[in-house]
Amino acid sequence: MRLTQLFTKTRKQIPADEEARNAQLLIQAGFIHKEMAGVYAYLPLGKRVLDNIAKVVRQEMDAIGAQELQMTTLQPKELFERTDRWDDKKVDNWFKTKLANGSDLGMGLTHEEPIVQALKDYVNSYKDLPIYVYQIQSKFRNELRAKSGLLRGREFIMKDMYSFARTQKEHTELYENAAQAYNKVFDRLGLGKLTYRTYADGGYFTDKFSDEYQTISNVGEDTVYVDEKKMLAINDEIYTPENLTKLGLKKEDLLKKRGVEVANIFPLESKYTDALDLYYTDEKGQQQSIIMGCYGIGVSRLMGIIAEHFADENGLVWPASIAPAQVYLIRLGDDDKVTKAADKLYDDLKKANIEVLYDDRDTRSGAKFADADLLGIPYRLVVSAKTLENDQVELKQRTGQEVTLLAIDKVESSINKP
Amino acid sequence: MRLTQLFTKTRKQIPADEEARNAQLLIQAGFIHKEMAGVYAYLPLGKRVLDNIAKVVRQEMDAIGAQELQMTTLQPKELFERTDRWDDKKVDNWFKTKLANGSDLGMGLTHEEPIVQALKDYVNSYKDLPIYVYQIQSKFRNELRAKSGLLRGREFIMKDMYSFARTQKEHTELYENAAQAYNKVFDRLGLGKLTYRTYADGGYFTDKFSDEYQTISNVGEDTVYVDEKKMLAINDEIYTPENLTKLGLKKEDLLKKRGVEVANIFPLESKYTDALDLYYTDEKGQQQSIIMGCYGIGVSRLMGIIAEHFADENGLVWPASIAPAQVYLIRLGDDDKVTKAADKLYDDLKKANIEVLYDDRDTRSGAKFADADLLGIPYRLVVSAKTLENDQVELKQRTGQEVTLLAIDKVESSINKP
Repeated sequence: MRLTQLFTKTRKQIPADEEARNAQLLIQAGFIHKEMAGVYAYLPLGKRVLDNIAKVVRQEMDAIGAQELQMTTLQPKELFERTDRWDDKKVDNWFKTKLANGSDLGMGLTHEEPIVQALKDYVNSYKDLPIYVYQIQSKFRNELRAKSGLLRGREFIMKDMYSFARTQKEHTELYENAAQAYNKVFDRLGLGKLTYRTYADGGYFTDKFSDEYQTISNVGEDTVYVDEKKMLAINDEIYTPENLTKLGLKKEDLLKKRGVEVANIFPLESKYTDALDLYYTDEKGQQQSIIMGCYGIGVSRLMGIIAEHFADENGLVWPASIAPAQVYLIRLGDDDKVTKAADKLYDDLKKANIEVLYDDRDTRSGAKFADADLLGIPYRLVVSAKTLENDQVELKQRTGQEVTLLAIDKVESSINKP
Repeated sequence: MRLTQLFTKTRKQIPADEEARNAQLLIQAGFIHKEMAGVYAYLPLGKRVLDNIAKVVRQEMDAIGAQELQMTTLQPKELFERTDRWDDKKVDNWFKTKLANGSDLGMGLTHEEPIVQALKDYVNSYKDLPIYVYQIQSKFRNELRAKSGLLRGREFIMKDMYSFARTQKEHTELYENAAQAYNKVFDRLGLGKLTYRTYADGGYFTDKFSDEYQTISNVGEDTVYVDEKKMLAINDEIYTPENLTKLGLKKEDLLKKRGVEVANIFPLESKYTDALDLYYTDEKGQQQSIIMGCYGIGVSRLMGIIAEHFADENGLVWPASIAPAQVYLIRLGDDDKVTKAADKLYDDLKKANIEVLYDDRDTRSGAKFADADLLGIPYRLVVSAKTLENDQVELKQRTGQEVTLLAIDKVESSINKP
């Protein structure tokens, strides 16, 4: 896309009403717009990053046989009363609204109940299981405070998946398959080495642990103890000698760190399925409970942590896998030869399916270089009268210092596609 | 996808709580799940159709240079008070909610105000215009009655686009460009010949007309008068001799029809931009008003009208451009040779990027044929011991009666990809 066509612009001033570095940077770069605390709109470049993260998540969920659907935001009170999750004393962060006829509705903050309810039309026999279903969509949580930018939203984008198994053994297989898929997601997002599968409290209706995925970062709000060799961690909340023994972790191998919870997996046993009467009939005709798991990934939170964690003093630094473009192409000066060469390079790269932000603005070179850095695009190319003397282009990677000159016809093969 | 993997199933019974044919069919086919009246979840096959419609819309909006973004559902009261659209007496179909601190919020039913507000960070000069921005997302309308399935939702998927122009002339260009893009959308969705650009009331702050796109159908709730030669129509509400003269339409050329409003375009003049202080500075340094247009397409409503309009007595009939799959592949019987041949054909078609629903269930052939029809997949292929005697496959199109035998290695080239 040509920057003269893009409606957003960068700004130098740090937004005064933002404490969180991720929101400051993303607003300065024109990726997001703050509607209110914890509620952000995604402008064109931000929408691309969000969609790219969602695509990675979607591919890995599809790869384990999960089926995508889209549940609704509006939720009836009655459904959540049946699992005792409607009352504000039980769940304190609902946004609630009313139908014109006065009936109470909630705005979806999690979808165990509606998914179980929907499956009642389709699941009866042992032949209908196991199942994974998932969705990627906006969720709503009425947080008292929301000062962490995309890290803690009142409206945020989440992938939530649910598994339904016939036996504990089958449940464990689904659970571990999903855990492997999660590792692949974090690897592809560039967070693999930073993100620990972390034992956490399983909730009041199971004696199992749950799993959090904690990305180690100084901006994290959670405290975790990590075993770097095993790539495992334990959450502060359950950090007791008994639990360490149970989990085979040794105090001397653990380092205290701060982390951001980017995903989680909960064993739900048959709490929701039993409560809503979703059972299956086994081979012998006996009615059996269904074991459920739920698997969340914070898609917009990941955008926030990636923005904040990888940023340097010059701005954002996107991993290639989710960058809004691969190349930031700078045209220096506007003489005919330069414009023609830059236009042609832009067209050629587009034809090669390489996403390019083309800085075709008539603005000073310093501003162009600064924007290339602030926007965090992996490759920067510069075309100028000087580089064209030898039919060359200047190439620099966002993460490096080295500037190299490259024959113009070698550019395409020098860009790694994600 | 293999049907043994798909969690949804078809059902024979018409859902008792649905009056609308589109919802009856889509529920029977397992495409949607009713959460409550006017609120539907999209199950895997329904999600595919919805995504396919959104993709067509997105491509045509991108083609006219529109930039995609994603605004928020949660909206602050103050913003809409400034344009006098908060009070229930002025806008009677808000869903409203509250922040934990008691502040009033609305759930986005339209996004003129937040878009204008967001643009204030980016638009100052004549150089920053013109702009089109759009989004595709869930909208919320607190309808008193919602008995029309996907045709009238309380929660529904919509594409809304907004244009910002410096002059009336520029506005008219943007408006007409978008109108052309709309025609392309309806052509690609198979509704081109059925969908009339229809003059309608422009609203109280302009003396211009607005444009509705009315798809002619007996299920429509609107009355329109169509000129079939000109492919233009006029809405019942403004059907007066004066307006006919103004629009160059003749009473004798018009036929009274029922229509479904699948899209609309409104000239907004500078009502919202002025009210929210979004201006631009012209070449002479003078502050000028910005002329705005808004352009809606009902994505889930289109899914409903397409489902209902094209359906026959055997079920759904999807246009190839949005079908959840191109091919419904039936394996008749389960002897080894048939299974191997059908499995191989399934794999080959997938490799050729043809989306296939593979009916690999051990169920009677009648049920398979009935489901192929009910699901509305464009091509039905049958592999059986009999067809394999001559290395052949049986091919039938959903819209035709003719059943032809085809060499297995000719199948791929016989399927038109959308």
